[in-house]
Amino acid sequence: MKLLRYGPKGLEKPGLLDEAGVIRDLSGHVADITPDLLHGEGLERLKAIDPASLPVVEGSPRHGTPVAGSRKFIAIGLNFADHAAESNLPIPAEPVVFMKAISCLTGPNDEVVIPRGSLKTDWEVELGIVIGKPASYVEEADALDHVAGYVLINDVSERAFQTERGGTWDKGKGCDTFGPVGPWLVTADEVADVQTLDMWLDLNGKRMQTGNTRTMIFGVAEIVAYVSQFMTLEPGDLITTGTPPGVGLGQKPEPFYLKPGDVMRLGIQGLGEQQQTVVAWHANVSGDAA
Amino acid sequence: MKLLRYGPKGLEKPGLLDEAGVIRDLSGHVADITPDLLHGEGLERLKAIDPASLPVVEGSPRHGTPVAGSRKFIAIGLNFADHAAESNLPIPAEPVVFMKAISCLTGPNDEVVIPRGSLKTDWEVELGIVIGKPASYVEEADALDHVAGYVLINDVSERAFQTERGGTWDKGKGCDTFGPVGPWLVTADEVADVQTLDMWLDLNGKRMQTGNTRTMIFGVAEIVAYVSQFMTLEPGDLITTGTPPGVGLGQKPEPFYLKPGDVMRLGIQGLGEQQQTVVAWHANVSGDAA
Repeated sequence: MKLLRYGPKGLEKPGLLDEAGVIRDLSGHVADITPDLLHGEGLERLKAIDPASLPVVEGSPRHGTPVAGSRKFIAIGLNFADHAAESNLPIPAEPVVFMKAISCLTGPNDEVVIPRGSLKTDWEVELGIVIGKPASYVEEADALDHVAGYVLINDVSERAFQTERGGTWDKGKGCDTFGPVGPWLVTADEVADVQTLDMWLDLNGKRMQTGNTRTMIFGVAEIVAYVSQFMTLEPGDLITTGTPPGVGLGQKPEPFYLKPGDVMRLGIQGLGEQQQTVVAWHANVSGDAA
Repeated sequence: MKLLRYGPKGLEKPGLLDEAGVIRDLSGHVADITPDLLHGEGLERLKAIDPASLPVVEGSPRHGTPVAGSRKFIAIGLNFADHAAESNLPIPAEPVVFMKAISCLTGPNDEVVIPRGSLKTDWEVELGIVIGKPASYVEEADALDHVAGYVLINDVSERAFQTERGGTWDKGKGCDTFGPVGPWLVTADEVADVQTLDMWLDLNGKRMQTGNTRTMIFGVAEIVAYVSQFMTLEPGDLITTGTPPGVGLGQKPEPFYLKPGDVMRLGIQGLGEQQQTVVAWHANVSGDAA
C-alpha cells in the first residue's frame, strides 16, 4: 500500500496510490494519515479497503509529507563508506545519530529554500524509515516488526552551518524546507528487500548520486535497534538512513553547492521520485505544519 | 500567570497557580495548555480569567509538563563559562545547539530512569524558554516578543552516550525521562529580568549546582535570535539554555553520576522547584505523550 497526503499545504487530505498509479481519496475513511494508523489495527483497516471503491482524485495535486504529526526526525550520518570517504571522515564504528528539526518537513516537490546567509546548501538522497509500532530496546531480529514502511527523503544540509559554526550537526540539518519527504509511505510488506534498493539524485538533469541500499554500513534493522537504545521510537517517527556518495561537498576538484533555480530530482526504487526547485531565502517560508 | 497541567500521565488537565499558590482548574475554559494558546489572543484570553472564579484543585496532584504538544526541544550547550571549564571545553564563540528528542519530556517530579547500560547519567539545572510567537530570522532586539514564558528544566544527560559513542551529543540527551519540565510555565510578564535568576540543584540534600542566569554566555534574547537563523521556532517549542557548574562530570577529584535511589531537587527563582527520584531502567518507561 502506498499512502500519501495530497492538496495545498496545511489542507492535505489522505489518499493512496492504486496499482494503476492513480491517487484515490481516503478521506471518507480517515481524517488524515496519522501515526496511530501506522500499526496493528490502523494499518489493517486501511489495507482492507478496496482501492477501486475510493473516489479518483483528478488532476495532479501537490503532495504533502505522507504522514501528519510525526514527532521525531532522526538521522544517521556517514552511513555509506564512500560518502564517509568523500567527507574525509572515518567509517563510524557505530551509527552516527543526529536530529533534524521537525519543522523542516516539507512536501516532496515543494521548493527548497537556501537559508539566509548560506553558501553551502547541499543535497542527500536517502531512504527513510517510518516507525509503526513503539520501539524501545528492541533487538535487531525484531526491529523490522516496528517499521510501518519506507519513504524517500532528501536530507538537505547546510555544510557550513553543520560543521563550521560550533556545536553539533543539527544546526545545518533542520532549516525550514530541509526535509522533503514522500511522495508516498510504502508499507513494509510491499518492499521485498529494503537492502537492495537503487537510489539516485540528479541536479539540473545531471546524475550526481548513484547508490544502492546494499552498501549501507548499518542496515535498517540495525539502525532501528540501535536508536531504540537511546530513545523510544514512536509511531510516525522518521529515521533517515544516510546518503551514498556524490553530494556537493564531495565534488572534485572543488565542492559546489545549490543555487537558486537549481532543480533536484531524486528517487529510490519502488518509493517514487521527488523534484525540488531551489529558491533563495524569502520571507514567509514555512514547512508542513502538522 | 503560572500555567500548568496536572493529573495522571496522559490524562493531564489544564490549570493555573493562583497568587496563594493554589492550583485552579482551567478545564472549563480550555481543553489543555497547547501551543496555540501561547501567543496573542490565546494568552490574553487566559489572562482575562479571574483565578478566584476557577475551581480549586484539592490535594497534591502530579504535575505534567506545562505545555502539551511541543514539537521541538532545542538545547544550548556550554553556555556558562564555568561549566565549559569543568567540561574541559573552550568557551564557545557562538551558541552550541543540539536537540533533545521530544519523547524525553516528562513531568517535573516524575522518576528519572537511568538508561539500560548507562554508567554516566548526570544532572543539569537549566532555564527553559517557551516560544509563544513564531520566530524566523528575528533580531535580538525583537526576540523577547516571541517568548511566551519560562520553565525550569533538568537537562538530564548521559555523558558516555553523549561523547564516547560517536556522532553528536543528541545520543546522550534524549533518553526517555531525560526532560523533566515544569512545574509551571511562568509567563514572560511575570519575570522582571530573566538574566538575574538564581538557580540551584541538590543531590540527596547536598548542594551541587549554584548559579545565576546573569553568567550565561549567551542570554535569552541572543539565543532566540540565533536559533531562529537556523530554523523557524514555533509556539510551544522549548529551548533549554545551558547549565551552571557542578554537574557530575565536573566533580573533583573524580566525576560521579546518578544511581538508583538518588534524589535530585532543583529550582530557579520564580519558576518553582522539581524533585526527581532516580530509578534503574525497567520495562514500560514512558514520557509525557502529547
